[in-house]
Amino acid sequence: MRLDHVGLAVRSVEASAKTFAAFSGARVVHREELPRERVRVAFLDAGGVLLELLEPTAEDGPLARFLAARGEGLHHLAFEVPDLARALAEATSAGQRPIDDRPRLGARGRLIAFLHPEASHGVLVELVQRAS
Amino acid sequence: MRLDHVGLAVRSVEASAKTFAAFSGARVVHREELPRERVRVAFLDAGGVLLELLEPTAEDGPLARFLAARGEGLHHLAFEVPDLARALAEATSAGQRPIDDRPRLGARGRLIAFLHPEASHGVLVELVQRAS
Repeated sequence: MRLDHVGLAVRSVEASAKTFAAFSGARVVHREELPRERVRVAFLDAGGVLLELLEPTAEDGPLARFLAARGEGLHHLAFEVPDLARALAEATSAGQRPIDDRPRLGARGRLIAFLHPEASHGVLVELVQRAS
Repeated sequence: MRLDHVGLAVRSVEASAKTFAAFSGARVVHREELPRERVRVAFLDAGGVLLELLEPTAEDGPLARFLAARGEGLHHLAFEVPDLARALAEATSAGQRPIDDRPRLGARGRLIAFLHPEASHGVLVELVQRAS
């Protein structure tokens, strides 16, 4: 699997996009608001792999709770897969614990699913189905 | 800057390399022990970008303290630069706070330097000079 992006929990997409652009040159290539997830996101291109900046838009979502508990910082790793339903089944067979039982719609119109960090050495893993 | 690798703090390089290989197919492409840093590392290829698994080899190093405080999980982002001394100067001008005043020798014989997470939204950033 190819690493598609690294997710970062931030308090402000605008402020953090500026910080990362200033020292790394990474530019915003996509912005989106996901009302159901209560997050606003921006993707920066870091040479093929993307950085996804995630800002909570409400006080009570999972990302707001993450920020309250751990502060800003690295949040998740997202791997690209050709067939998400199959990748989820294979990950489960390999001992992973899906948070999402089945693929759901995520940012950029892609199908996504998360795996619990408990079974992957503390790393929250997202599987993203390749754009067709 | 291109994202070179993502660093993961783990209790065991062996166990975590097995876990990540099992569900992502990422294979170990390099192993090394860094006695001065008191860490053992393994790099896995995740489609160009690498995952660096870091295991402490002593109880008193910075990585052992990170694990004691936060547990296993995402640790740092490493960006590749053509000229590290220059990149450090530019990052400082852009408001970053270097942990290393000057380039030092890191894994894979590369020159490296870290930037303090305080100035980069909680993300520990490593700059790595491209292999010549």
